[in-house]
Amino acid sequence: MAYNKGGKHSKSGTLARSPLARAHFPRIPNVAGVKLSAVAAGIRYRGRKDVMLADLAPGTTVGGVFTRSQTAAAPVIWCREKLKSGRARAVLVNAGNANAFTGIAGVLAVKMVAKAVAAEIGCRSSDVFLASTGVIGEPLPHDRITCALGKLHRGLSGAGWRAAAESIRTTDTFPKAAAAVAHIDGKPYTIAGIAKGSGMIAPDMATMLAFLFTDAKLPAPVLQRLTAAANRVSFNAISVDGDTSTSDTVLMFATGQGSRHRRISTPADPCLADFKLKLRSVMTDLAQQIVRDGEGASKFVTITVSGAESSRAARQIGLSIANSPLVKTAIAGSDPNWGRIVMAVGKAGEKADRDRLKIDIGDWPVTADGMVRADYDESPVAQYMKGSELEIRVDVGVGRGRFTVWTCDLTQAYVSINADYRS
Amino acid sequence: MAYNKGGKHSKSGTLARSPLARAHFPRIPNVAGVKLSAVAAGIRYRGRKDVMLADLAPGTTVGGVFTRSQTAAAPVIWCREKLKSGRARAVLVNAGNANAFTGIAGVLAVKMVAKAVAAEIGCRSSDVFLASTGVIGEPLPHDRITCALGKLHRGLSGAGWRAAAESIRTTDTFPKAAAAVAHIDGKPYTIAGIAKGSGMIAPDMATMLAFLFTDAKLPAPVLQRLTAAANRVSFNAISVDGDTSTSDTVLMFATGQGSRHRRISTPADPCLADFKLKLRSVMTDLAQQIVRDGEGASKFVTITVSGAESSRAARQIGLSIANSPLVKTAIAGSDPNWGRIVMAVGKAGEKADRDRLKIDIGDWPVTADGMVRADYDESPVAQYMKGSELEIRVDVGVGRGRFTVWTCDLTQAYVSINADYRS
Repeated sequence: MAYNKGGKHSKSGTLARSPLARAHFPRIPNVAGVKLSAVAAGIRYRGRKDVMLADLAPGTTVGGVFTRSQTAAAPVIWCREKLKSGRARAVLVNAGNANAFTGIAGVLAVKMVAKAVAAEIGCRSSDVFLASTGVIGEPLPHDRITCALGKLHRGLSGAGWRAAAESIRTTDTFPKAAAAVAHIDGKPYTIAGIAKGSGMIAPDMATMLAFLFTDAKLPAPVLQRLTAAANRVSFNAISVDGDTSTSDTVLMFATGQGSRHRRISTPADPCLADFKLKLRSVMTDLAQQIVRDGEGASKFVTITVSGAESSRAARQIGLSIANSPLVKTAIAGSDPNWGRIVMAVGKAGEKADRDRLKIDIGDWPVTADGMVRADYDESPVAQYMKGSELEIRVDVGVGRGRFTVWTCDLTQAYVSINADYRS
Repeated sequence: MAYNKGGKHSKSGTLARSPLARAHFPRIPNVAGVKLSAVAAGIRYRGRKDVMLADLAPGTTVGGVFTRSQTAAAPVIWCREKLKSGRARAVLVNAGNANAFTGIAGVLAVKMVAKAVAAEIGCRSSDVFLASTGVIGEPLPHDRITCALGKLHRGLSGAGWRAAAESIRTTDTFPKAAAAVAHIDGKPYTIAGIAKGSGMIAPDMATMLAFLFTDAKLPAPVLQRLTAAANRVSFNAISVDGDTSTSDTVLMFATGQGSRHRRISTPADPCLADFKLKLRSVMTDLAQQIVRDGEGASKFVTITVSGAESSRAARQIGLSIANSPLVKTAIAGSDPNWGRIVMAVGKAGEKADRDRLKIDIGDWPVTADGMVRADYDESPVAQYMKGSELEIRVDVGVGRGRFTVWTCDLTQAYVSINADYRS
């Protein structure tokens, strides 16, 4: 059986907290219709919670987006299929084993866990959503999960956010959660979410998982559109090294258990304006927390590309900059190496006007008219680059497309975390 | 003026020779109609040759391929334009300054150098090809080049290969050359080439340059097709980190000064079979030398993808594996982490059948039927991974497309070379 970085996984609880982490776990309010629980099922780690269950009120709707990987894990394939009904009653997540590349045994494990959860909480298997993260290529010890279901069920509570966020970590150095209050029809609704992922570059599958919950009442097709739209500018706008997990999953659940608001039938309904804004803000917050936990990261970088042919083109250029090892290592070295940014813009494959390209680092304009500015003074920019929160703005001079991506630097610590010999 | 890693550039002559380099500079025979020369023009480095000139017999034809960067350097734009005539009389290359992102001054510098070379050797400016590599964003000190032309001209010799290969280095730790004899019509022709590039990941623009010469007589359109075809499976099949230079240039010159062979009018002429084979072999040899000089590289890796929908798809999958930082760091750590290979196949965006995916590392089959093989024993594979020449074979189980790429590992040395503070 292949163990991938098993040694590190089992030690993950002891990894030093990222220097870019926020000081405190945020306060997450209850969401009417959502109860959470987490227990230690001993899937891989010792002495820590590794399975969570969220119980969702009858009538809950679901939207979701998943990895585009051609080698997607078994739970992803299950969720994609079950999403079609738009109904959900539970979501169960385990850490320690990704149930990926496990062949027919993986498919059977998913079915068995879903069936057991359904029996425990009294719903249909098809209303149970699943996600797994951890080592790949090992059979999921599904019996350990099913044995833990009774305890999970008994522990359900509206206040279980932190335990849930803790339990889904793999190499994350801090638990990730965010919440906001959104108004629909003048009435307040909670949006709360938890996520895991140390920057898409964690060992093995580097999975990014996020689960969002609200007590607003939204039909599944509306929820799907809202989730996909917010995902595009949040989780799809972060990158640590461009690697994509076989298990990436974002699921959003709406219980409809909050105050009554008028019936929503289209994502274009104007009374959703504030909800869209807050959903985007919660998802962006979670996405940024993932970047802040990037392996070995010492700097958090915001890259805004404007002047592109389309926002899609701007995103491509932004990710080309964010994923360039040359740019990332320059940032690690606090080097305002704008030449590498020019290179990354050029290789993105999107239209850019070399002679109108503008690059700003922090508040300093660096280039104009296809060359470095005559008045460019590098000293203050080099000083700025020594900070841990950096901003790069690039205008490629051909259109009005705009997009912001977030990334971190590429340090020696990243290489040593990912290259160290297995025990 | 922006200096990008200037300090390192000036020290580049003292970088330790790559452990993956071959022991000796190869013997390169004269190519009838080609004379070379190299001198120290003091463009950036002290005490080393940094400009080369190749003088080409009248009637020489040229083919070439260039970076697809949207921010291509001034000499690239010049060459692309001049390539249309298919004629060449000289190629001049300087190291130390890339003449990239230099605005209108860069365009003028190119014109002035071409004009001076043309005057020196007695040809039209439009028959002079140029390439520059080194720091970007600084005006090219073209007067230093033009002042050196007399000395360059006087030094021309059919045996100047090593000096030429030395002079075009930036952070290369060894000079790169290769040659072969190809038969057309039963008569022997030489193909000789030089190249520079430390794996596309050198500081600044990481430029890859290659210049090939033959004494066969090939019309420009034929030469263009042969060059592009060989480029596809050689220089376009290597990657160190996926970054693309603004200056990448491959130029192939045919002097027609060897023995007479029958007139060739199409690249499909069957008497070109051996020439195509040898051209591909010389270009692949040079391409592999670039990978062997990858910054910080400690392992040379051959990745062969088969069973893809097309050779294009196989190449995409191969590059996805070769460019994955997770795969590259695992290789650096001698870790047979096949899970990361599964991930990289999945993210390539090309069709792959997860349940028919076969991965071999060295002579060891690792996966079958969408999971790790029951008989997989990791110990010999882990031992194999400690070597410095590795082979990975992946069959994605959907078609007959096949492609081989070459890459190196991602080590701590890579990060420290590219992230170190500028003096």
